[in-house]
Amino acid sequence: MANDIFILGGHQTDFARNWAREGHEIMDMFRETLVKGMEAAKLDASEIDAAHVGNFTAELFCNQGHLGGFFAEAVPGLSGIPAGRHEAACASSSIATLAATAEIEAGRYDIVAVLGIEMMRNVPGDQAALYIGGPAMWSGHECQDVKYPWPHMFARLGDEYERRYGLKHEHLMGIAEINFANARRNPNAQTRTWKFTDQSFTADDDANPVIDGRIRRQDCGQVSDGAAVVFLASKKGAEAYCKKRGLSLDSLPRIRGWGHTVAPISFDAKLREGQQSNAPYIFPHVRRAIEGAFARAGIAGPEGLDAIETHDCFTTTEYMAIDHFGITKPGESWRAVEDGTIAMGGRLPINPSGGLIGLGHPVGATGVRMLLDASKQVAGTAGDYQVEGARTVATLNIGGSATTTVSFIVGR
Amino acid sequence: MANDIFILGGHQTDFARNWAREGHEIMDMFRETLVKGMEAAKLDASEIDAAHVGNFTAELFCNQGHLGGFFAEAVPGLSGIPAGRHEAACASSSIATLAATAEIEAGRYDIVAVLGIEMMRNVPGDQAALYIGGPAMWSGHECQDVKYPWPHMFARLGDEYERRYGLKHEHLMGIAEINFANARRNPNAQTRTWKFTDQSFTADDDANPVIDGRIRRQDCGQVSDGAAVVFLASKKGAEAYCKKRGLSLDSLPRIRGWGHTVAPISFDAKLREGQQSNAPYIFPHVRRAIEGAFARAGIAGPEGLDAIETHDCFTTTEYMAIDHFGITKPGESWRAVEDGTIAMGGRLPINPSGGLIGLGHPVGATGVRMLLDASKQVAGTAGDYQVEGARTVATLNIGGSATTTVSFIVGR
Repeated sequence: MANDIFILGGHQTDFARNWAREGHEIMDMFRETLVKGMEAAKLDASEIDAAHVGNFTAELFCNQGHLGGFFAEAVPGLSGIPAGRHEAACASSSIATLAATAEIEAGRYDIVAVLGIEMMRNVPGDQAALYIGGPAMWSGHECQDVKYPWPHMFARLGDEYERRYGLKHEHLMGIAEINFANARRNPNAQTRTWKFTDQSFTADDDANPVIDGRIRRQDCGQVSDGAAVVFLASKKGAEAYCKKRGLSLDSLPRIRGWGHTVAPISFDAKLREGQQSNAPYIFPHVRRAIEGAFARAGIAGPEGLDAIETHDCFTTTEYMAIDHFGITKPGESWRAVEDGTIAMGGRLPINPSGGLIGLGHPVGATGVRMLLDASKQVAGTAGDYQVEGARTVATLNIGGSATTTVSFIVGR
Repeated sequence: MANDIFILGGHQTDFARNWAREGHEIMDMFRETLVKGMEAAKLDASEIDAAHVGNFTAELFCNQGHLGGFFAEAVPGLSGIPAGRHEAACASSSIATLAATAEIEAGRYDIVAVLGIEMMRNVPGDQAALYIGGPAMWSGHECQDVKYPWPHMFARLGDEYERRYGLKHEHLMGIAEINFANARRNPNAQTRTWKFTDQSFTADDDANPVIDGRIRRQDCGQVSDGAAVVFLASKKGAEAYCKKRGLSLDSLPRIRGWGHTVAPISFDAKLREGQQSNAPYIFPHVRRAIEGAFARAGIAGPEGLDAIETHDCFTTTEYMAIDHFGITKPGESWRAVEDGTIAMGGRLPINPSGGLIGLGHPVGATGVRMLLDASKQVAGTAGDYQVEGARTVATLNIGGSATTTVSFIVGR
């Protein structure tokens, strides 16, 4: 499209790291990510015009907000550049990306940093569940007296599929197995060395205990520490960048399209909207966000994609993504699991990175991490988890109980 | 300028209200502000293309994040429209405004809501001091073992003026008196009915006790509940809006320019930058943000302004704003207090609204509130606190210890 945004490069941390155990603070993670990202993209501080950070809730985990002020603290050469922090729960850094791309399209800046970050393993697991449980949903109005609010919410998403179309747990487990398998090939994946048995992906209550409703342990995304950064550029900025480095503009990945919709924060309101609409989709607004990205990228449907990095905070989320992307008819996502479509080597691999289940899910980092992985895929630099010949990759990042939905199409 | 952004209208809450004491939650404040704003601007939900919310830390005060999902929950007709939440401590809703204006300039949307909100009086004062104390500064690295972190930080700003230029407390008290006096004319001001004695603005330790260093009670902005919303439009959006309502485009206030700089989060790093630069300003980056706004608006200096709505979280902040705006030579802000320049009826009234000291300071609402007040002034609808004949008004919104600085120029 006319307003292509170029991706100059970036960096993500190893999501297996526990930064607090290493004696590090959130600033250390922020600084290392930014510095390594600038090295990877071969960017000097003087070339960066503005910066954005996506973060869900460092306030609760680290008693820290105002992360826009971290850029110049971490890299003094960035002092003075405009910066801001953006939040939409698990879609926080996609919102940061949208703000950055809008500024570039408006002609304000030519090269902009977008960093996503979350530190979550510095508190006990039950505390972490509380911190992420309340603020991303309608606090005090949903999941009252529920021990694990998010597994509960996304179990209910499965219940809605069951009610409308039928849903077998073996298909959810198929999604989990693919994500964990892909993660083994990703050197940054939190679960890359985890051991599973034949029982791990069954309804065995010891090997795969119930967390809430139909959600068992292996249905869940991980609680992770991590950060990722990408550097985005206008055409003018990308041309200057390439000229200086003897690169061809065609070699750069670019954001070709995006879609963004936001539904009411409460899960019940969203379910009602789906039920009352004539659409066959559980979440019509998620479908509209994907359609928006397709339309802006000039893509007719999933046949124009070579891979997808999707939200899979739970297996039910990815199950929803499959039919909402149009890979199967609504309610028939199971077919794409059964026939191998979404596995590595299949027609349309989903989460070659391992996704939130296999790679990990530092909440505020996930949107940028997806964008970085999509750019690696189309640049052919994804290493052991490369989808061969990938030219066009979509992301789908979801905040809360599918409240905020953002999809990007990355191509080359 | 070519990219003028039009302000269609808006609403602010009465900052004297204590919403928790009224039995209300943050959603109630959000909904009432949005609905009354839409009524004031005569906008139907179907006309609003996107929405942004600025909020500092509902996570800590209300266990609530993801406020982008509140728009469609509050007004079902907004379901599906893109939305996001933005944060930069006390400058949060200015960051939301910048994201909204970038989207409009990029041609993404024609009419965008920007809402700022903070609920702070639902917890005891000491708890509130803790909640706003840590996250907006470099948590764990600044103001350790300080009971009131922000008064401490802004007392140090006064210390730097004292060291470089000399500073008398009577001039800070002059600033406080003007703000409290202006607030008496503002029907939304938190302090509009407060009683003061002749001793209140002296160094009397009973009537005006020391909070930290040179900061006494009357030097402080208020802890407030409140929200404000404005509706921004592209030229195309504003023209359609005016045509439908029989209005003239010339009658609409507009954002003519903006400036935005972000310094390192730590106060020491910022002070050092000022000391090591050749600039005579304590905070060169604050000056640059103001210069950026002037340049974009095509204004040479403060002589092009009729009024200013500035950050005055403490009197020292406003003292800094006076010389950084160029109203006096650097270090001579006291002259503008002494000679009546900044009082109502003076050459360049500052904070006709009463500012953060007199009107109140619901942190995340302040940036949008300033913009709304600036638009009222240039539209001639500010009622009892109208600056006669105002055509051009600047805002200056500051997050943290002057980490994030945003200035807008509003004109007609």
